[in-house]
Amino acid sequence: MNDSFLNDTIVAPATVPGTGAISILRISGPEAFRLVDAVVQLKRGTVSESDAYTIHFGSVAGVDEVLVSVFRAPHSYTGEDSVEISCHASRYIVEEMLRRLVDAGCRMAEPGEFTRRAFLNGKMDLAQAEAVADVIASTSAAAHRVAFNQLRGGFSSELSALRGELVEMTSLLELELDFSEEDVEFADRERLLSLIDRTRSHVDRLAASFKDGNAIKNGVPVAIVGAANVGKSTLLNALVGEDRALVSEVAGTTRDTIEEVINLDGLMFRFIDTAGIRETVETVERMGIERTFRKISEAEIVIGVLDATSEESDLLNNLKLIVDKLDATAQELVVCLNKVDLVSDLVVNKFVTMINEFVSCSGLNSIIVNSAFKRLLGLPELRSALVSLKSNLLDGGDSTFVTNERHYQALLQTSSALADARRALTSGVYSDLVSEDLRRAISSLNQILGQDLIDPETVLHSIFRKHCIGK
Amino acid sequence: MNDSFLNDTIVAPATVPGTGAISILRISGPEAFRLVDAVVQLKRGTVSESDAYTIHFGSVAGVDEVLVSVFRAPHSYTGEDSVEISCHASRYIVEEMLRRLVDAGCRMAEPGEFTRRAFLNGKMDLAQAEAVADVIASTSAAAHRVAFNQLRGGFSSELSALRGELVEMTSLLELELDFSEEDVEFADRERLLSLIDRTRSHVDRLAASFKDGNAIKNGVPVAIVGAANVGKSTLLNALVGEDRALVSEVAGTTRDTIEEVINLDGLMFRFIDTAGIRETVETVERMGIERTFRKISEAEIVIGVLDATSEESDLLNNLKLIVDKLDATAQELVVCLNKVDLVSDLVVNKFVTMINEFVSCSGLNSIIVNSAFKRLLGLPELRSALVSLKSNLLDGGDSTFVTNERHYQALLQTSSALADARRALTSGVYSDLVSEDLRRAISSLNQILGQDLIDPETVLHSIFRKHCIGK
Repeated sequence: MNDSFLNDTIVAPATVPGTGAISILRISGPEAFRLVDAVVQLKRGTVSESDAYTIHFGSVAGVDEVLVSVFRAPHSYTGEDSVEISCHASRYIVEEMLRRLVDAGCRMAEPGEFTRRAFLNGKMDLAQAEAVADVIASTSAAAHRVAFNQLRGGFSSELSALRGELVEMTSLLELELDFSEEDVEFADRERLLSLIDRTRSHVDRLAASFKDGNAIKNGVPVAIVGAANVGKSTLLNALVGEDRALVSEVAGTTRDTIEEVINLDGLMFRFIDTAGIRETVETVERMGIERTFRKISEAEIVIGVLDATSEESDLLNNLKLIVDKLDATAQELVVCLNKVDLVSDLVVNKFVTMINEFVSCSGLNSIIVNSAFKRLLGLPELRSALVSLKSNLLDGGDSTFVTNERHYQALLQTSSALADARRALTSGVYSDLVSEDLRRAISSLNQILGQDLIDPETVLHSIFRKHCIGK
Repeated sequence: MNDSFLNDTIVAPATVPGTGAISILRISGPEAFRLVDAVVQLKRGTVSESDAYTIHFGSVAGVDEVLVSVFRAPHSYTGEDSVEISCHASRYIVEEMLRRLVDAGCRMAEPGEFTRRAFLNGKMDLAQAEAVADVIASTSAAAHRVAFNQLRGGFSSELSALRGELVEMTSLLELELDFSEEDVEFADRERLLSLIDRTRSHVDRLAASFKDGNAIKNGVPVAIVGAANVGKSTLLNALVGEDRALVSEVAGTTRDTIEEVINLDGLMFRFIDTAGIRETVETVERMGIERTFRKISEAEIVIGVLDATSEESDLLNNLKLIVDKLDATAQELVVCLNKVDLVSDLVVNKFVTMINEFVSCSGLNSIIVNSAFKRLLGLPELRSALVSLKSNLLDGGDSTFVTNERHYQALLQTSSALADARRALTSGVYSDLVSEDLRRAISSLNQILGQDLIDPETVLHSIFRKHCIGK
């Protein structure tokens, strides 16, 4: 792949700016050693004559004493000659050193340019390069596991294996075409069909993992629903008060608003804005009904909050209003019978039995929690309930989750091309049409790995602009 | 010096926390190599068997792929075996790695503990160790120059030279005491006197530099004074809008409130809170007069803002009110004749002549600037005026500035002990009393360098708690 930017030497701070102990400046490119030698005076020798993987003490006149780490192409992050300068973490020093390096001939790196170079120089494929930003942005154990697996090439090798099978199929088919006049059949049709089916089912499984992958990366969407004054806000505040996740500032997540994201046992839960729902279920018909329904339908888990001090009929009615909105095939329910501290055990037991009966008829996967959120009762049980409903995301082992919209779309295209190939094959059309469909499938997988990108500049730009400077 | 903390191995993140490209974890202590080997699997070999100043690729199972830099005692920042682990800058990864290193046996470092170890292991003296925090906190070229000079030992070697002379004097005197019965005079009294005078004058010069050193470090204090509606706030906003310095969050500065600090040509100016003054000079007698006077007296530069659209007598009266408050020996004045865009050149010239005459009689060092701050006129001239009044701080060359209250107090004590020694010497008392005074002077200098600290734990604690974690 050709990239006009690769000819110059880039520099950027690689550490978060601010007042700390150490800051790192990264320099990469063909002139990295010469330009650093122009700015940094090593105590002994020069960067240019230093061995790879060595560290040197040096000074930048009047600015700082620094440590210089030397990486020689191709054994560096970018695959190019690279230097890391470690200095005191002062904004003044970092700016002054950047100024001198730029004066010497370095260019300030664009966001993600180091990783882009690593990709262009074949140090990683595109899926791995994209995972770099995800690894950095991960704030939960589950999100980190998925991103790190992708960074290490787990996802890529799975795709490469699929691609390998498709390539083999296609070559056999095309060999046939070359010998078509001789009416030879190199590719066993039955075997081809079963191979396409197997590959397609694998691709579909990967595509289907996007929902869970997205939940792992951006948080499992949870809606809190219930009538007015049942304790919905108290519940959210109690959860948030215990552990409020820092919402990642990395662009490109699927969120369009800032939401409460809470890390429970290593999994992120995203409490979607239920302002509409908070208008109470009873008045939902009157205002914002569309919006509220949409919000509920976005959730994978709905927490229905009921008031144990209500009349039996009101409680059942409120429960019915919630359950009716849910889709048993895609959503799970946690019923919180709240304010149990204000009623007798007898009432609680009666209500729990009632709720159990009603919910089991609905076919929903559900858990009931007795709570008094004002007094923080029932919170551990609610947390356990949320985590247990999504335990498949936590201990996913090495299974791959697609977390990237671009990958998801490419997988859908692959699947559809394979479906076309199957149709062509069974309807007995010419092998070259089947082969064309298979080539489309291969091309879609290639897009994920970054091979033969159709519009490389646009794709790369949109991917790497989301990275941070210095990575 | 004995320090019970030196026996264990410490760890801390050395980079500013947040989402970035690289984070660094620092490990230092006798078990650094073994503990890192317990957590990081190098691609080849182990940390323990690695050469000093080498970099190694490795991985922390399930967490990250890392680079490990190896420093062997005594050739490291702390003087101990040390390791720096470079990982992806994700909060999750940093926390997980810290957890594993602590599980392996590291202790989380206290603020400044790496630098404290560097001091205790003789890698730097106390004045240099204190300069580390100042270098990091410096946001202007001037502040950085002074702190960096101190870090590199410029201040220390000046003190050491002074101390050397005092030690020589004292040994001669004490030699005399040993031979006192023989009535020998090893020390030439005249030479001793002149040596004491010379040393004391050097110490006094250093102590006197504290005012400027403090201005360099924390900003030259500037007060903006003037009647109501002359444009004081407009002036400050215009200056701040152009370049607002980030107020350092490092503790231990002399500021007690957050103030506007602006970096002009590499020098910080601190605009002290003149809310009281803004109540107008005319009504100053009525309210907060004490506070306002104190504020004005704190300033090294006073910007007096006058309104060119005033009556001649009002203008002169307002100028007089300002000038009367100032101390020509310690303060400098910039008169801004504001709103010159609203009057004719004739009026401007008349006022300028008037102001010039009045101010020159006062003996104040002053500059007049014609301005119209609402239209950003006169701002460059005002900036130049401020910088030129303090140009001695900017191009101080290698001259030493004391910036540290602790050093300042120790220098005052040294000076006073030297004065006592001189008095004792000239009044012809026994040599042992003179020698005692000289020993006090030496001991005060030692306090700055960190030798023979009288209460080491308290001194070190109060110094290093102001450092950041990881340094």
